[in-house]
Amino acid sequence: MLKTILTLITLLTLTPCIAAESSDNWRKVSSENIVVIALPQGNVFLELAPTFAPKHVARFKQLVRDGFYDNEHFYRVIDGFVAQAGPKDGSAKDKKVPPLLIEEEIITPENWSFTLVQNKDMFAPQTGFKQGFSVGYSAKENKAWLLHCPGVIAMARESAPNTGTSHFYITIGQATRYLDRIMTIFGRVILGMEHVQAIKRTAVSEGQPEVDSAQYTQIKSVNIMADLPKEEQFTILVENTDNALYAKKITQKRLRDNPFFYKKQPPILDICQSTIKTKVM
Amino acid sequence: MLKTILTLITLLTLTPCIAAESSDNWRKVSSENIVVIALPQGNVFLELAPTFAPKHVARFKQLVRDGFYDNEHFYRVIDGFVAQAGPKDGSAKDKKVPPLLIEEEIITPENWSFTLVQNKDMFAPQTGFKQGFSVGYSAKENKAWLLHCPGVIAMARESAPNTGTSHFYITIGQATRYLDRIMTIFGRVILGMEHVQAIKRTAVSEGQPEVDSAQYTQIKSVNIMADLPKEEQFTILVENTDNALYAKKITQKRLRDNPFFYKKQPPILDICQSTIKTKVM
Repeated sequence: MLKTILTLITLLTLTPCIAAESSDNWRKVSSENIVVIALPQGNVFLELAPTFAPKHVARFKQLVRDGFYDNEHFYRVIDGFVAQAGPKDGSAKDKKVPPLLIEEEIITPENWSFTLVQNKDMFAPQTGFKQGFSVGYSAKENKAWLLHCPGVIAMARESAPNTGTSHFYITIGQATRYLDRIMTIFGRVILGMEHVQAIKRTAVSEGQPEVDSAQYTQIKSVNIMADLPKEEQFTILVENTDNALYAKKITQKRLRDNPFFYKKQPPILDICQSTIKTKVM
Repeated sequence: MLKTILTLITLLTLTPCIAAESSDNWRKVSSENIVVIALPQGNVFLELAPTFAPKHVARFKQLVRDGFYDNEHFYRVIDGFVAQAGPKDGSAKDKKVPPLLIEEEIITPENWSFTLVQNKDMFAPQTGFKQGFSVGYSAKENKAWLLHCPGVIAMARESAPNTGTSHFYITIGQATRYLDRIMTIFGRVILGMEHVQAIKRTAVSEGQPEVDSAQYTQIKSVNIMADLPKEEQFTILVENTDNALYAKKITQKRLRDNPFFYKKQPPILDICQSTIKTKVM
């Protein structure tokens, strides 16, 4: 006897009509494009998004390879919002990194395509997936941009747009979509999100004792997967979002054709609630 | 030098135009209406919602007072989705609790009012706050319902609607709004959500080793705040969402009138990203 809405997840993710597992269903993520953040509670794996934010990806990889983030802390962590890390504000280390031009959206070439998830999203004309990332798209503007769904990594900045340097945040709560197109997202967590969720919160509710900075979660190290010793490397596959199979899966999710949905729900998919599966080998 | 998008949260939550702090800004939650779930990592405090789900609140309080959940486990925990707890499926303890009629929405009386947050939400004609809870509202149907924002507690069930008994889930990721109006939400976390987020995940990605059930997070105890020894009780205040001051705050949030928003964003508020503050005394 299963008294669980969670059978649901199986029902929504199993897609019996789709052809059997094939290599086309999964995409191997290049080890050059995987960042491994080692935290005391476990390792977090991110896929970088050079198509959308090439300069930020290059910057981040360089800083990672310089050991820039090793032993730094998550110093602003607000439950339901973001976990932010970087060097001490105003320190020599902080100031030596020059600002970057923001990469908040891309101009889409003529034949640009993506897997549509939803029309008339509240924050974007269209949403969908491109290369395993959640995107917004405006055909009128010929522009696409990455979305602030849970688990994306983006560059923090000051008030002016082109002021991001090295401080980054990972989104840990309900999608902060009002930050779309004004921040540079440059990757997303593909494995180990539970370890991000376990980062020590530094902001407390009014009336609660202040959190001692000695308790902040420290980053043990950050590495590019390709740079790790061979025995520590492994293969990460993510669902291939850019083909007809995946598009069909989206359509089936939207239908919710299952007795659990005893009343018909609006045929809407929230792009940020439409997760992409990961598999390790 | 602050290189942080997090100044933002201050900017969005400070509302200098609004009259100084007054008792009307905060609502004291009745200790009869607060559930305290003691987890190894810390205590989680929930406010119950008897206006929306009276029978489920009564059932839950009775089970809590019977010690029903003490020493039970969170046995299905999926990152970004839900943390679900209850007795062993099919056990005598499980089977002795009779099913409840679903309380998925209420019929609103003639003069029913709420604080509007958004028109034409993708899943509801209108969204807003009522008594500190996120609600959907249909004027046409004269109905209101609680929303699956992060941190709500709801009764799990089988496929048929009226099959919920004692198993509950707390939402821990992007709002699962497709479950609105087909599940009974009966409360929400008002303090300690970070401890919910630290509950051990029981579902793993394909290719990862299965999680041993010995690692599941155990509930130490569940109590009604009013039943705790006097020295363990304290006062929890939540923002009063049902007055003109709060409505004004919503309007200001929507405007994003701050240089950080160097490009104008759509004037949209996601109800599930519009958090309500909590203060302890």
